[in-house]
Amino acid sequence: MVTVEECWLAGLAACGIAPSDAAADLTQLITPADLPHVAEAAEGGGNPVIEVLRLLRQRLGDINPTAAHWVHRGLTSQDVLDTALVLGLREALTTVNEELRAQISATMTLVETHRHTVMAGRTLSQHAVPTTFGRKAASWLGGLLEAAEDIDAAEDRLAAQFGGAAGTMAAGTELARQSGATAPERTAWQVAEYAATQLGLPMSIPWHTNRARITRSGDALVRACDAWGHIAQDVLVMSRTEIAELSEPTGDGRGGSSAMPQKVNPVLSVLLSRTSLIAPHQAAQLHLAAAQQVDERAVGGWHAEWPALQTLVRGTIAAARHATELLSGLRVHGERMTRRAVEAGEDLLAEQRAIIAAAGSSPPASDLASAAVENYLGAADLIVSTVLGQAERYLREKA
Amino acid sequence: MVTVEECWLAGLAACGIAPSDAAADLTQLITPADLPHVAEAAEGGGNPVIEVLRLLRQRLGDINPTAAHWVHRGLTSQDVLDTALVLGLREALTTVNEELRAQISATMTLVETHRHTVMAGRTLSQHAVPTTFGRKAASWLGGLLEAAEDIDAAEDRLAAQFGGAAGTMAAGTELARQSGATAPERTAWQVAEYAATQLGLPMSIPWHTNRARITRSGDALVRACDAWGHIAQDVLVMSRTEIAELSEPTGDGRGGSSAMPQKVNPVLSVLLSRTSLIAPHQAAQLHLAAAQQVDERAVGGWHAEWPALQTLVRGTIAAARHATELLSGLRVHGERMTRRAVEAGEDLLAEQRAIIAAAGSSPPASDLASAAVENYLGAADLIVSTVLGQAERYLREKA
Amino acid sequence: MVTVEECWLAGLAACGIAPSDAAADLTQLITPADLPHVAEAAEGGGNPVIEVLRLLRQRLGDINPTAAHWVHRGLTSQDVLDTALVLGLREALTTVNEELRAQISATMTLVETHRHTVMAGRTLSQHAVPTTFGRKAASWLGGLLEAAEDIDAAEDRLAAQFGGAAGTMAAGTELARQSGATAPERTAWQVAEYAATQLGLPMSIPWHTNRARITRSGDALVRACDAWGHIAQDVLVMSRTEIAELSEPTGDGRGGSSAMPQKVNPVLSVLLSRTSLIAPHQAAQLHLAAAQQVDERAVGGWHAEWPALQTLVRGTIAAARHATELLSGLRVHGERMTRRAVEAGEDLLAEQRAIIAAAGSSPPASDLASAAVENYLGAADLIVSTVLGQAERYLREKA
Amino acid sequence: MVTVEECWLAGLAACGIAPSDAAADLTQLITPADLPHVAEAAEGGGNPVIEVLRLLRQRLGDINPTAAHWVHRGLTSQDVLDTALVLGLREALTTVNEELRAQISATMTLVETHRHTVMAGRTLSQHAVPTTFGRKAASWLGGLLEAAEDIDAAEDRLAAQFGGAAGTMAAGTELARQSGATAPERTAWQVAEYAATQLGLPMSIPWHTNRARITRSGDALVRACDAWGHIAQDVLVMSRTEIAELSEPTGDGRGGSSAMPQKVNPVLSVLLSRTSLIAPHQAAQLHLAAAQQVDERAVGGWHAEWPALQTLVRGTIAAARHATELLSGLRVHGERMTRRAVEAGEDLLAEQRAIIAAAGSSPPASDLASAAVENYLGAADLIVSTVLGQAERYLREKA
Repeated sequence: MVTVEECWLAGLAACGIAPSDAAADLTQLITPADLPHVAEAAEGGGNPVIEVLRLLRQRLGDINPTAAHWVHRGLTSQDVLDTALVLGLREALTTVNEELRAQISATMTLVETHRHTVMAGRTLSQHAVPTTFGRKAASWLGGLLEAAEDIDAAEDRLAAQFGGAAGTMAAGTELARQSGATAPERTAWQVAEYAATQLGLPMSIPWHTNRARITRSGDALVRACDAWGHIAQDVLVMSRTEIAELSEPTGDGRGGSSAMPQKVNPVLSVLLSRTSLIAPHQAAQLHLAAAQQVDERAVGGWHAEWPALQTLVRGTIAAARHATELLSGLRVHGERMTRRAVEAGEDLLAEQRAIIAAAGSSPPASDLASAAVENYLGAADLIVSTVLGQAERYLREKA
Repeated sequence: MVTVEECWLAGLAACGIAPSDAAADLTQLITPADLPHVAEAAEGGGNPVIEVLRLLRQRLGDINPTAAHWVHRGLTSQDVLDTALVLGLREALTTVNEELRAQISATMTLVETHRHTVMAGRTLSQHAVPTTFGRKAASWLGGLLEAAEDIDAAEDRLAAQFGGAAGTMAAGTELARQSGATAPERTAWQVAEYAATQLGLPMSIPWHTNRARITRSGDALVRACDAWGHIAQDVLVMSRTEIAELSEPTGDGRGGSSAMPQKVNPVLSVLLSRTSLIAPHQAAQLHLAAAQQVDERAVGGWHAEWPALQTLVRGTIAAARHATELLSGLRVHGERMTRRAVEAGEDLLAEQRAIIAAAGSSPPASDLASAAVENYLGAADLIVSTVLGQAERYLREKA
Repeated sequence: MVTVEECWLAGLAACGIAPSDAAADLTQLITPADLPHVAEAAEGGGNPVIEVLRLLRQRLGDINPTAAHWVHRGLTSQDVLDTALVLGLREALTTVNEELRAQISATMTLVETHRHTVMAGRTLSQHAVPTTFGRKAASWLGGLLEAAEDIDAAEDRLAAQFGGAAGTMAAGTELARQSGATAPERTAWQVAEYAATQLGLPMSIPWHTNRARITRSGDALVRACDAWGHIAQDVLVMSRTEIAELSEPTGDGRGGSSAMPQKVNPVLSVLLSRTSLIAPHQAAQLHLAAAQQVDERAVGGWHAEWPALQTLVRGTIAAARHATELLSGLRVHGERMTRRAVEAGEDLLAEQRAIIAAAGSSPPASDLASAAVENYLGAADLIVSTVLGQAERYLREKA
Repeated sequence: MVTVEECWLAGLAACGIAPSDAAADLTQLITPADLPHVAEAAEGGGNPVIEVLRLLRQRLGDINPTAAHWVHRGLTSQDVLDTALVLGLREALTTVNEELRAQISATMTLVETHRHTVMAGRTLSQHAVPTTFGRKAASWLGGLLEAAEDIDAAEDRLAAQFGGAAGTMAAGTELARQSGATAPERTAWQVAEYAATQLGLPMSIPWHTNRARITRSGDALVRACDAWGHIAQDVLVMSRTEIAELSEPTGDGRGGSSAMPQKVNPVLSVLLSRTSLIAPHQAAQLHLAAAQQVDERAVGGWHAEWPALQTLVRGTIAAARHATELLSGLRVHGERMTRRAVEAGEDLLAEQRAIIAAAGSSPPASDLASAAVENYLGAADLIVSTVLGQAERYLREKA
């Protein structure tokens, strides 16, 4: 919020509305020590900007009275908070996508390494037909790619918001008129453009009651959590004591139990599973808030975004790091996978046998003799190649 | 589901796996009269495909035994249901976007007609500063545009799914091998491509456990519901008896009350508001289902998509029609808007007066004299032009 | 809805407002064949009562014009729909609780039969310490008991609603006044009491904007779904091919696969898991609708209850039956449970060994020698007895 | 968590498992300054107990090595965290219910004061029939009563949890056996009872995988948020600039706007509305977590409770205070209510006139002449008396 105020103040000065010495470095004026107080005050006025502004004006008073006079002029609380939210969201989306790229690379390695590692395919919890671990990891990879693309798209749509009390930029325009601007609404627009550029954000018409930018970002973050949740579910099943085909990376206190020394808990997957149970509710809350917009500022719908974004962003960033750690260090027990698949061959090949039997002619003995789990993998390898190609293309384009 | 089976069967025949007379028109074989029975049977096996298939085989038995033999071969239930879901989703997305385009046109007319209709801007339920009804409707328009773009994007990503039991296309490949294909996995792929083309869908690698297509479509539909919810909230406020600045279109039994003959209820907005309260929960359910994927077919996560899609699609299509009716027939009482704003001028201009006072020099008397609600509209007109430009561009590109 | 109209009409006649021949049997006047038409018309007026009433009046016209004149008089649409919802909810709660009682009995049998069946306790997916299957099933039983108690409590609070347009019973009172009643508001109250009694429901002051009855019922149904979801998760893990300590009941087409003849899918647990993913969203929607009450009838909050109740009630009743089938027919492979626990003894007893080691004195050799999974069950048996006692008490009190 | 460890340690000493000097005051050993570190470490092991325990042992090491040896022995992380959650929930439920009682009193005063204050009843946002503000506030009161009763019931069901790794109390039993107890599982039970008593909580069998206590508390808190949301919606409508029949209490910086000096925003209602949009999602998350229980400790379902409880409890306590402030200081502009109702009499009495007209005989002129809004209030007064009686009874019973 302080950065937003600072860039707007710089814009007022740069566009000739405020004197040039009104521009000031505000970044040191509010510190983490102010947060508990601001948080409490936010409940009084309904948002934290009012108190942040009071502190800024008070602390600027002695060192730069001109800045103290001009700070926030032309803005409304929502401008500051919404643009600050966008800055936070941008950082979150960027961080998550950096992790997703690392995960895509790590998963590509898993897919390539294990494209021929035969394992039991399972449906509805039961052995079904053979597959490969590479094929399974290719599904994970597909999910990561879809999430990364949607996060890219959401990030591209983020924009600053400087609309004033009712989204008309009236105060900024009036300030420009008072300063003698000939086309004051254009000058107000320029201030907004200047501030947006300083913040590294695109300019946009005010979106105070149109929250698609927020919901789109939320949906994309949830899509990442979905992809990780899916991976975590697979790891949790396959690292069960009785299955033991995968193990989580260990080290650094991960997964120990204080009471049961033998245990190595798949704690990364547990935490990813947790986040995947949490995230959808936060996105729903954001959508609901978007739909509850009314008038030129909503009566609760705006404010309901904040805890949802807080929980979602915090959870997603933590999960992004966990997922990178998991996928980079996952231990694949390929021999055990294949041994189990071979031992279960009778069941895993039942579909194949039924097809051969239904072929009408009695199948040649050689057909049945050659029946082996590695001979009933269909187009798994072709599918693996396709997904790897998509991943390579994505990483190349984003490089 | 029947169409999916039919196109796959045609693919088996076209690619030389099944004899050419296996291709058959299945569309008349299952009728709405079968639905209650299929619905009940679906609870036995966990999905409706099993019973649909049984009926198809039974009814084909007499008229085309070859087709009865080959129908569904190479597929798994999930292939049929997922591809059928995609067909349904595509129709829903198309229908909603047609309505959205009509709404965009209607709202453009509202914006243009009322770009100079001054009204009281309201924040947190209280009079704030002046705005125009055109500026307000431009916010509605922005929300409709964002929804339409996301629905376009979601529709573009829909694809057929033909992966077999574990997403390896093993059964299709085995059938191709039995038919003597030299590269059986390529033949299986061709069958899938053929069927997808017949269905008008892009081919894709199997996405049986990667549900981003579903959640993306769901999110986009909710984004439309959010946009309508926002509009409805505004209409509900502005058509209140005491405000009466907007009225819903009447006619055709809309909004009457059996007991209170004087009433004209804003029933379209009530219904849109309803849908906006329902839709976010459905999208959350879809995300949750996506995150609960495990193994090569989920134990509940797959099945949990169906009621959410049913409620969401049904609600969104109804709401789309209501929103078109509302925006096309909305009655704007511009004189009342402006009269109220003028009467409330003292309050609505308080911000402007404070700015003038803070300008330091005592403001010229003419400044205060000219203070009138129509002189404190900031960049409203510029903003209106910008949004209209975006809308024109969108409609032109989609034409 | 027809039953509600009928009982109110009887009340008008019984209390002297309408002539005695106004009372009429309405039950045959609306049939399932009317439903599609009523459903469509409901979107026009915002609720289905208006059309139901039109049909009732029309069809009564010839056979009982007095009834046609008096039907619905004194009521508003919301009275009819809310009271009808309560009738539906009562039936749902009763049905679910009957199933819950059957489940409690079946689970008591499981607990008693297997109170000494040792198995591996698992935490965070890994072997932890020994437990018994009886102890595990006692946790299931506890969940069923809590759900049953909350459903009982929710059912006890259901009541009829007859408030008229704004919850003041004004129309009923006016009708009574017209009929010459000396204390017309008391007469209106008596009509409501009469109708409620006919419907088997308690009388209540109008609760048109106080939806706690609805949310409480919803929450209780979700609590049952939670309990079943928990059981299903356990069955899904324990019936995995590699674990195979439990099997679902078979028979009657349950769990077969059209393509893979070897498979027996745990389809009941899959369906229960599905419902547990769906139900929480429906309850959230009901709460949201409750919080969106405003004025004397909400603008969407009322209407948003209907699809949530429909999905929740339908899903819960189906799940209730599935859960009874599952718990009554669950096949417990006790020998395999115990064999696995014994084989895993080294790990499962690590905690015990650590405690003995930490006891300070070197433990007597006999202590370690006697270390066996059946000697490290703590108070499992005591806990089992406690839960069985609770269950017996519950069943006795409800008998 | 520290209090739980302390009471359990006291129990070990009191029951003769640990030496009597093992009991220790732990409350000063962990301070708020430790929280950031503990929070970070919690992500490593999956929960915060592990690090809290490490700090406790380290800091006890010098001052009471016996306590350092015995602390946490017999417990698992989940015991500590769940019982700590219950302590937090109990405090939250108690706090909320104290506020609810204050709100019930304040609302009773509103109801009594305004039982004859006539106002326009509104349905679907339009004037409908007359009502009184007392009647409306009686609906608010009904919602507060239902919430208070459910919170009481939820609080009564809270209990301690001491089950050890798998809910069998095996570690506690083994410790008792090592200490020479003759019925070691009974001794373990006594330790748990002792600790529970110290904490002021009922004893219970372990409920590690049965989360009904958590969901029931969550549902009850949401029910309170629903009731406040409903009140807030009414206040937001009725304090609109154009309606102005209610005003929020002012003072202490509530509701000011930095830019628009004329504004008094209904900020308490805005904040209550916000919380009512947030709360349902949190309860849904708790239910989902409950349904995702599996094995003897869930893989994410347990952990997903924490952020939901944090958001829900924090939001509910803040909202409870806001609601008390709102209801205690609400300014009712009764004259304006009644003036508006009288002016709108033509519309508000349309239903009454229709009833009179339908009475068949032409109504006596006196009937129409006496038609006035205060003569069409039905049983409003009777309803008011009924609700006031319920509230008096509730407050008396809880006194």
